[in-house]
Amino acid sequence: MTEHLDVAKLQRRLAEFAAARDWQPYHTPKNLVAALSVEASELVEIFQWLTPEESARVMDDPDTAHRVTDEIADVLAYLLQLCEVLGVDPLAALAAKIDRNERRFPAP
Amino acid sequence: MTEHLDVAKLQRRLAEFAAARDWQPYHTPKNLVAALSVEASELVEIFQWLTPEESARVMDDPDTAHRVTDEIADVLAYLLQLCEVLGVDPLAALAAKIDRNERRFPAP
Amino acid sequence: MTEHLDVAKLQRRLAEFAAARDWQPYHTPKNLVAALSVEASELVEIFQWLTPEESARVMDDPDTAHRVTDEIADVLAYLLQLCEVLGVDPLAALAAKIDRNERRFPAP
Amino acid sequence: MTEHLDVAKLQRRLAEFAAARDWQPYHTPKNLVAALSVEASELVEIFQWLTPEESARVMDDPDTAHRVTDEIADVLAYLLQLCEVLGVDPLAALAAKIDRNERRFPAP
Repeated sequence: MTEHLDVAKLQRRLAEFAAARDWQPYHTPKNLVAALSVEASELVEIFQWLTPEESARVMDDPDTAHRVTDEIADVLAYLLQLCEVLGVDPLAALAAKIDRNERRFPAP
Repeated sequence: MTEHLDVAKLQRRLAEFAAARDWQPYHTPKNLVAALSVEASELVEIFQWLTPEESARVMDDPDTAHRVTDEIADVLAYLLQLCEVLGVDPLAALAAKIDRNERRFPAP
Repeated sequence: MTEHLDVAKLQRRLAEFAAARDWQPYHTPKNLVAALSVEASELVEIFQWLTPEESARVMDDPDTAHRVTDEIADVLAYLLQLCEVLGVDPLAALAAKIDRNERRFPAP
Repeated sequence: MTEHLDVAKLQRRLAEFAAARDWQPYHTPKNLVAALSVEASELVEIFQWLTPEESARVMDDPDTAHRVTDEIADVLAYLLQLCEVLGVDPLAALAAKIDRNERRFPAP
């Protein structure tokens, strides 16, 4: 993970991209969570008729691999934009959640 | 964003958490995208009856703020676990997507 | 299918239920589609970690069967309320769609 | 609502359509709920950037009206196919749910 690819820098690029197109009025938290769920469903669509085994080989086909990677990017894009407008640090939120889960569900 | 919170480290903690509970057989790409979409919908549920204006103030209430942050963590957790099983680098995927979008949709 | 259970009658009961609680201002098409997608995801949640075979036996357990039936009712409730506010006849929409699909995708 | 458009008849047409294309092996409950949630999200996609007021006028544009009606048909198609494979009567499920809700949440 290079410095170039850190989360804060991606958030800044996404914010500049949206600002240059005057999209901020559309980027209410309510609209961004809807867009996030739509992108997550576009990922589901790729997998919906596959067996578990087929789903495990989905990256073997270059076209499908590209499509999957692209939808993952879209999900992450809306998640980071949502975090930006809400003032949530997504990595800190996840670290805190893993801490909580480790206490609540001790490994057997 | 401290070193402690980098994406690769969070992915490692999630993988260890799942392995310690023998959850890997459940973590097919197909199941993980379903779980991701379910968590995204739990975010939508918080916002579904709010006006755009109310949605912009959602972090003012500490309980709702906690719930939102928790669901964001869940979405990110499944997204990172999906990337892990597929061998996708989520930050590189998003950087490449922003590059493409900047070429395809030049700012006015 | 008895007369008592026809679609128009269920729509009327749902509309009266909402009106008695002054919920109409919340029932914009945008909010109703969000609620519909949230209920669909609650169905997905029941199945997300199941194998295809386990998913086929989901009605064998009375508690799960009740939960599935209840979520189906919720999906249908929001779908019918959406149709009501939009003036769409859902059965006619589906019949027209099947007609189109039969022309577009002739059986082999 | 004419006899021609009753729910049981639509379910029969959907079942025949799927059988003629040998799709039954794909129509596990798990896959059908995924497809249902994907179609619900395609409805959300139409509304995601609209204001509440714009969403209330969505049927004024014939192209959008057609798209909305088509997605409603898709949601209903997967819901009815799910009910078919699970042996659930969707109208009876909804009637029972409304009965329960009327008891649990008496009108003010």
